[in-house]
Amino acid sequence: MKRLTIPIFVSVILIAQSAMTLKAQDAPARPGSPEQHEFTIASFHTESGVTLPQARVVYGTYGRLNAAKDNVVLLPSHYMANFHGYEWLIGPGRALDASRLFLVATELFGNGRSSSPSNTPEPFHGPRFPVMTIRDNVEAVHRLLTEDLKVTHLRAIIGFSMGAQQAFQWAVSYPNFADRIVATSGTAKTYPHGIVRLEGQIAAITTDPVFQNGDYTTPPAKGLEAFATVWLGWLFSQEWWRRELWRQTGSTATTFEQFFQYRRTHFIPDADANNLILQMRTWEKHDVGMTNGFSGDVERALRSIKVPFLYMPSETDLYFPIGDARYEAAYIPGVSLVPIPSLWGHTAGAASNPADAKFLNETIGRFLSSGR
Amino acid sequence: MKRLTIPIFVSVILIAQSAMTLKAQDAPARPGSPEQHEFTIASFHTESGVTLPQARVVYGTYGRLNAAKDNVVLLPSHYMANFHGYEWLIGPGRALDASRLFLVATELFGNGRSSSPSNTPEPFHGPRFPVMTIRDNVEAVHRLLTEDLKVTHLRAIIGFSMGAQQAFQWAVSYPNFADRIVATSGTAKTYPHGIVRLEGQIAAITTDPVFQNGDYTTPPAKGLEAFATVWLGWLFSQEWWRRELWRQTGSTATTFEQFFQYRRTHFIPDADANNLILQMRTWEKHDVGMTNGFSGDVERALRSIKVPFLYMPSETDLYFPIGDARYEAAYIPGVSLVPIPSLWGHTAGAASNPADAKFLNETIGRFLSSGR
Repeated sequence: MKRLTIPIFVSVILIAQSAMTLKAQDAPARPGSPEQHEFTIASFHTESGVTLPQARVVYGTYGRLNAAKDNVVLLPSHYMANFHGYEWLIGPGRALDASRLFLVATELFGNGRSSSPSNTPEPFHGPRFPVMTIRDNVEAVHRLLTEDLKVTHLRAIIGFSMGAQQAFQWAVSYPNFADRIVATSGTAKTYPHGIVRLEGQIAAITTDPVFQNGDYTTPPAKGLEAFATVWLGWLFSQEWWRRELWRQTGSTATTFEQFFQYRRTHFIPDADANNLILQMRTWEKHDVGMTNGFSGDVERALRSIKVPFLYMPSETDLYFPIGDARYEAAYIPGVSLVPIPSLWGHTAGAASNPADAKFLNETIGRFLSSGR
Repeated sequence: MKRLTIPIFVSVILIAQSAMTLKAQDAPARPGSPEQHEFTIASFHTESGVTLPQARVVYGTYGRLNAAKDNVVLLPSHYMANFHGYEWLIGPGRALDASRLFLVATELFGNGRSSSPSNTPEPFHGPRFPVMTIRDNVEAVHRLLTEDLKVTHLRAIIGFSMGAQQAFQWAVSYPNFADRIVATSGTAKTYPHGIVRLEGQIAAITTDPVFQNGDYTTPPAKGLEAFATVWLGWLFSQEWWRRELWRQTGSTATTFEQFFQYRRTHFIPDADANNLILQMRTWEKHDVGMTNGFSGDVERALRSIKVPFLYMPSETDLYFPIGDARYEAAYIPGVSLVPIPSLWGHTAGAASNPADAKFLNETIGRFLSSGR
């Protein structure tokens, strides 16, 4: 089989990431070109009760913070992504103009760059790294904004998938911090089906004896391939596969078998198994109802949201089905529920194809400029 | 955790199966009580090119074959099921009256009772057992009917899931053999998403080193649990989980965690790993378009169906989504497409709850008696 060109997970999104990682670190800053930064918190207390001596958050910025510090948009990352994951929203003809806005794109704990099982020293290395919640991540980014950047208010928070989970948590934890919030392909809580799905993916990794309860000496390659195969079934819609829309991903595969074989063996290249599992546990534990003051009541937490909220589920998302979004939207006072009409499943919320990119940019662009 | 009462896979279906297995073999035959039989074919040629010296089909019968041999309904089994899998359709107030009809319920190759990896002698034992196609199964049952029972015509064929796959294959291979055909929760072809899903489940088993490429000496328990966990995510709809409809399964679990833990460790008890994989390969290869004369063209094969066809997808089936059923139904000349309005996902097509049982029995009952 010839080598295919699509290297990763959500191809359209992450191709952009791969291509820009070096550029971001080497090139001089100019509007539209990101700068990479790190923010370190000493003695970071996690919800699990563990205190990390140092917690590091990697983030990228696009554009310039203005003197009034009132041109900031936060873009929290999705599963295993780096800060380049929102470049489909940035630039001429897109929703975010980095010549006018200051964009802060943060990376979740566990992605291998922010503090993670793979890069944390003893005694919190590997499988000993504490399970981070979405709230832990939001708290760390809140400190990053207020302490590192001295930013106390945001124009908007825009998040896809685990980024949407963070957006919901911001809306509940800090209801007046942002003027507007956008969530694509993600919900306010991981409902039981999400836990079943993620546990299936975790089981696929941990069944490999090389995994050694996380203390592996070489990567559990067979488990990682099983994980990728299981995950791949959830990523796109059933109809996407029947209509062979993988032919529109830029893949050089000419048959389903080639595409499938490449994807199951090149899902998230070089990802560390403990990192993959850590972020799945973060995902599982997400529940805005567990925010202090809401006693586990997700409906009450959703009713507390104070700002305009653009909620964009994908019509064919198998992780965060549109039914869950409709259920939640019924409780959000200022919600605009705008489903993405797409066959691209979960990935639609990250503009994995031109039609969804156009729909997202136009809808989010209108939402951000409304009422001003 | 206390022991839960739901032992298996699709609880409502298989509880009935378990309870009746002994009865079927021990009790005297009376209408409504099944008799178990076996039919053996010498030198069975499979599509894969392998000739099995002996191929055995286990089947059950309900009621009496009349003198005219014109009161027969065929009920081909679903994944890993035995012949008791259709008892939700049989009896007073249900669609099938065994005091009037002669019901023949056949068991797929690979279920551990009909010829299977687990019960076939060398050289076709274990992983050496040939991949059987749905067409191989239909051919074997055709011989069973015509040679063993001398039945050359059927009132109806009714199939759920892999039983529906067989019903579609009968409709294409033997277009005038049955007066009417019913397919619930199953399609005429396994589309690529089905292959991705099933391969994820197979990968979960084969990642366990105990599996030893199928030559295990003890069951690959860890792989089987991973398999069950992955499969469980596909079985019911996402909303089923959010609404906790598992509370209506008869389970004594009081929390999601209890239910999930029990199901992932008691999915299809005592099933042999090679059997599980064999039937998943049968499932993957299903395609009525590959029937002789259709050159791989599923649409042309569907257009060749000659008899009234009741097509009942579940509205929330994640294996055989309603979109695939709508696509196929557009090509079937005499189709009645009647989706099952249910949150019970794939299992809705086997009457896994009272509302679906009522809907199925009423709809199928009307269909069978129409035009007579």
